[in-house]
Amino acid sequence: MKKVEDYITTIPDFPSPGIMFRDITSVLGDAEGFKLSIDEMTKLLDGVDFDVIAGTESRGFVFGTPIAYNLGKPFVLVRKKGKLPRETVSETYDLEYGTATIEMHKDSIKPGQKVVLVDDLLATGGTMEASAKLVETLGGEVVKMIFLLELKGLNGREKLAKYSVGSVVAYEGA
Amino acid sequence: MKKVEDYITTIPDFPSPGIMFRDITSVLGDAEGFKLSIDEMTKLLDGVDFDVIAGTESRGFVFGTPIAYNLGKPFVLVRKKGKLPRETVSETYDLEYGTATIEMHKDSIKPGQKVVLVDDLLATGGTMEASAKLVETLGGEVVKMIFLLELKGLNGREKLAKYSVGSVVAYEGA
Repeated sequence: MKKVEDYITTIPDFPSPGIMFRDITSVLGDAEGFKLSIDEMTKLLDGVDFDVIAGTESRGFVFGTPIAYNLGKPFVLVRKKGKLPRETVSETYDLEYGTATIEMHKDSIKPGQKVVLVDDLLATGGTMEASAKLVETLGGEVVKMIFLLELKGLNGREKLAKYSVGSVVAYEGA
Repeated sequence: MKKVEDYITTIPDFPSPGIMFRDITSVLGDAEGFKLSIDEMTKLLDGVDFDVIAGTESRGFVFGTPIAYNLGKPFVLVRKKGKLPRETVSETYDLEYGTATIEMHKDSIKPGQKVVLVDDLLATGGTMEASAKLVETLGGEVVKMIFLLELKGLNGREKLAKYSVGSVVAYEGA
């Protein structure tokens, strides 16, 4: 039986030399690969008690919404700056070059809610750490972070050490 | 029983005076509203024979992936320029101010495949028309376009007159 990793395309030297880019569009573009990836990510939530799934723009939306639908949970958007129409909280974090800012609606998480965060890829963990801070600013509790892929060489788990982190496929390198 | 429109938040004068912004985050943020919206969009595909669902970044991802998962179909990403790692085709279209360019991977649609396009909102239809052109450039056939919301005053259906278009909630104005 095929595994999730069998559906991933690896592109050497993209977007810059030395980077092995893990392309998940080939997972989504195969009906069985897509179903398997959602089902395996959903299994990472077995036994986790939570109220809401939040996903980060834009590949967190791709994986987060089928999981939320299947588990009967609401879905909250973590978006890039300037995209949400109502009052927001925002968090700025460092990228390799420059910074990025993400936002959530102020009323998207209620104090005390248990939140699962979803994204496609755990690299350095910067985006996920910023997403968690937004949830906490709103009084929510991050009970689990799940990813389809993890690049272990970038030490994202260290940055996210205070959270419970799960991934379906972990690559040794960067 | 509540309807999809009961979950939509309307924000007057956003992003500019005179615009009634229809905010779908309040649909997603309610477990029942989210389930209902996906189920109603899925019903628009009753009796439609198709191979692939494609969604346009980024709210097309939110609605497209649960529908694709539920119907056992693959999901193809239509992304903003520069986000896809492999060889692409691209299409540039007019916005109110300036232009936008979207892309698909060259191998994401096979010639002859029947494609459903999904987005959250039918306004002028510019993004959807450009998405359809990309599918057709790759030899695919657009058999249906589905939206959660439609703003009838912006005449998107006229621009998309050669396609079969469905929406769950239609507002009279812009």
